[in-house]
Amino acid sequence: MTHWIAGVWVKGKGDALCSMTPYDASLLWQGSSATTQQVESAVKAARLALLEWRQYTFAQREAYVSAFIEEVKRNKERIAETIAKETGKPIWETRTEVAAMIGKASISAQAFHERTGERARSVNGSQVVLRHRPLGVMAVFGPYNFPCHLPNGHIIPALLAGNTVVFKPSEQTPLSGEVMVRLWQQAGLPEGVLNLVQGAKDTGIALSQSKEIDGLLFTGSAQTGQLLHQQFAGQPGKMLALEMGGNNPLVVSEQYGDLDASVYTIVQSAFLSAGQRCTCARRLLIPEGEQGDRLLERLVDITQRIVMGTPFAEPAPFMGTLISESAAKCILQAQAHLQSLGGYSLLEAQQGQHAFVSPGIIDVSVIADLPDEEYFGPLLQVIRYQTFEQAVELANDTRFGLSAGLISTDDSEWAYFIDHIRAGIVNRNRPLTGASSDAPFGGPGDSGNLRPSAYYAADYCAYPMASMEGTHTLLPEQLSPGLHFSD
Amino acid sequence: MTHWIAGVWVKGKGDALCSMTPYDASLLWQGSSATTQQVESAVKAARLALLEWRQYTFAQREAYVSAFIEEVKRNKERIAETIAKETGKPIWETRTEVAAMIGKASISAQAFHERTGERARSVNGSQVVLRHRPLGVMAVFGPYNFPCHLPNGHIIPALLAGNTVVFKPSEQTPLSGEVMVRLWQQAGLPEGVLNLVQGAKDTGIALSQSKEIDGLLFTGSAQTGQLLHQQFAGQPGKMLALEMGGNNPLVVSEQYGDLDASVYTIVQSAFLSAGQRCTCARRLLIPEGEQGDRLLERLVDITQRIVMGTPFAEPAPFMGTLISESAAKCILQAQAHLQSLGGYSLLEAQQGQHAFVSPGIIDVSVIADLPDEEYFGPLLQVIRYQTFEQAVELANDTRFGLSAGLISTDDSEWAYFIDHIRAGIVNRNRPLTGASSDAPFGGPGDSGNLRPSAYYAADYCAYPMASMEGTHTLLPEQLSPGLHFSD
Repeated sequence: MTHWIAGVWVKGKGDALCSMTPYDASLLWQGSSATTQQVESAVKAARLALLEWRQYTFAQREAYVSAFIEEVKRNKERIAETIAKETGKPIWETRTEVAAMIGKASISAQAFHERTGERARSVNGSQVVLRHRPLGVMAVFGPYNFPCHLPNGHIIPALLAGNTVVFKPSEQTPLSGEVMVRLWQQAGLPEGVLNLVQGAKDTGIALSQSKEIDGLLFTGSAQTGQLLHQQFAGQPGKMLALEMGGNNPLVVSEQYGDLDASVYTIVQSAFLSAGQRCTCARRLLIPEGEQGDRLLERLVDITQRIVMGTPFAEPAPFMGTLISESAAKCILQAQAHLQSLGGYSLLEAQQGQHAFVSPGIIDVSVIADLPDEEYFGPLLQVIRYQTFEQAVELANDTRFGLSAGLISTDDSEWAYFIDHIRAGIVNRNRPLTGASSDAPFGGPGDSGNLRPSAYYAADYCAYPMASMEGTHTLLPEQLSPGLHFSD
Repeated sequence: MTHWIAGVWVKGKGDALCSMTPYDASLLWQGSSATTQQVESAVKAARLALLEWRQYTFAQREAYVSAFIEEVKRNKERIAETIAKETGKPIWETRTEVAAMIGKASISAQAFHERTGERARSVNGSQVVLRHRPLGVMAVFGPYNFPCHLPNGHIIPALLAGNTVVFKPSEQTPLSGEVMVRLWQQAGLPEGVLNLVQGAKDTGIALSQSKEIDGLLFTGSAQTGQLLHQQFAGQPGKMLALEMGGNNPLVVSEQYGDLDASVYTIVQSAFLSAGQRCTCARRLLIPEGEQGDRLLERLVDITQRIVMGTPFAEPAPFMGTLISESAAKCILQAQAHLQSLGGYSLLEAQQGQHAFVSPGIIDVSVIADLPDEEYFGPLLQVIRYQTFEQAVELANDTRFGLSAGLISTDDSEWAYFIDHIRAGIVNRNRPLTGASSDAPFGGPGDSGNLRPSAYYAADYCAYPMASMEGTHTLLPEQLSPGLHFSD
């Protein structure tokens, strides 16, 4: 039983779909995709459930979220294992994903009240009240890199605000999606409030084009996000929140400070999750000259020694696989392409068994027209620069703007950096892959459509309703000019 | 000299444009529209000015806004007179528009800090800092009904957040736009921070399609807004904030309380500004039966006695003209169309001299397929209903969702109303045309694209930049698994 629609698990009637471990190709999950008709029935179920769900008090809705979080806590090792198996990420890392899921409940409740929620005051005999109302039925499209945490970061705020949801996980991680949804079922969520449909592109199109959805919350590639943006043209009343990728720069100053600590920060930025975080550093800007050479040499040295392995291997690996063999091939193709343009591999990424790819570092300084693409894997491009100002200019030379970082002990460089850099997550001397859980998340340019998520997810889950209220109508002593009530 | 580009007043090179008083057709303003090239030079000026403007401190930018507000205060009667002449609204009413302009500065500063702004805290040796950054060059498209207050409500938040602006007033109110912009000049605003281009559709298209703008803030018709939404498709990184119209319902309960006070509330809702507010009541839902009959009778009686006149007439009129003769004709055409569908005029709107139209009330209860259009003038449609639930259902039967009201002394009806009504401004026993200045403004459906303005304008003028900061990089004692720094 593959899809959860109106509180019932049903079989899919569409194309066959399966999920395999990317490290030993064992079958994890199989089923059939949801057809357009099944997607429509999920949307209808969500619409029907909306009638009651939106009338619940916030406390009532929050109680369901708390019950879900209790289930997550009870099952945290099982969830972490599922994600590890399905994505190939090391278990120590997927445990942090489960922790982030748990943290989402209280942060979302706080954001609901601070960003939306309700407030009232009295002004000249009227109550001025600000309330917020749910948008309706929200489609949530999950990505594969954080198959539970990221859709969870849409689902919880959407439900808290009174929306109902139809969730389509990435077709690469259907099992993680299902495991998460089953915990909502165990938490006793009323039927239809959350619905699960599985499938690839066709199912996604059916859901995004459904006339009955009021919004779509998407985390994924810039390409798909752009298509969705075009698809939603002329429908201004539908909420579209896109969180797409980046081609993120990490600038290392001449004043980088401690060598190993800086290298550690770079490795964490570029190769954590095998480079499959949208905040990962893709371009490393290093000063020309000895200081830079020394850093680069040590970086290659340390990166060469990164332990790769299966999720449950002991001692634990730093990196697992990519999501699929074809994703692995993409990274190697990107590397070959950069080499063909004149890039020089300092450490060549190599494909291992199945979806394993070892980390690659390539110097692309000589490439005049460096492709402005997001290579979603462990491939770090190095650019040598001459002046700090030039480095910041190069860093900004991207259509994206998700994350950017600076490694520097010099406060004035940092001041210059934050005044000039164009990105939504901008860290200093900390890995780019670290984002604060209670901050908004998202960046300008092609990284999204300026609907930041995480702490600001509350904003796109509700619309404001502003009221002036009195218990009865008033006939003021001084009427507006030109009105006559007495004969 | 018609356009203010890079701090210089220049002549337009496009089509001739003029503005006449709508009540006696005297010439107020003439000039030539900005060509595409002139629009581009305005956008370039804004981009150039951005470099310095965005680096100013908030206090520095706020000081310019304060200086502008001082100019507004010094010139308030002149501004009110200009708006009155150009729109045909009574002077007592345009004075309230100037007051709203003045109020915008402190409200926008407060919203900047509360909704965006900056905050910081320490977490485990890192500073977690949230800043907000301007988007860049914002195009502001003004409407004619509040030709100063509404663009001012975009310009001030945009400038405070560090954006620069190219402002195109409605082609129906170029003089009001110019008068306002000249006050910014007098306030000493650095050149290029705000630019003015005048023109109609072609100028608008040139501005909206400029590759160099980072966003467009629009107040106007649903039709133009939809076109803009389509035009921006596939450009997710550009901010588009649409504030469009409504087909706003005002529900009168059987328990409406005092007769005259209720009638007063209806008249203020439907006919203030000659029905040219986007929040005006368009559809009046009245219960069938004696109570409703009595109210309707009194409403027709009072409305018949509404004094119309030129802006400076004494005694002062309640209503002036519509914006133009063609706008007046549109209202009469709408009335004729509703009559042809079976509508019954209780009070027929009639065209007077120039752009005068007397208020009309038409019972459209028998029309099965009532057009869901915004008739932007003094034409109120009456629908008789049987049950309160039916009234709310009818009220929601619109693709728009800007404002809605309830006249009722019954708290349980109000509770039901706010739980079921779908609109962004929802008033009880208060005119629909009254919106709190420190509340967000906007509604779901075709009334906008879920970028509420007014208090929430801060949101679409900046993007969040979230940082984790440390003075130096760290090599933790406990490294991530699978990394090796010692040999």
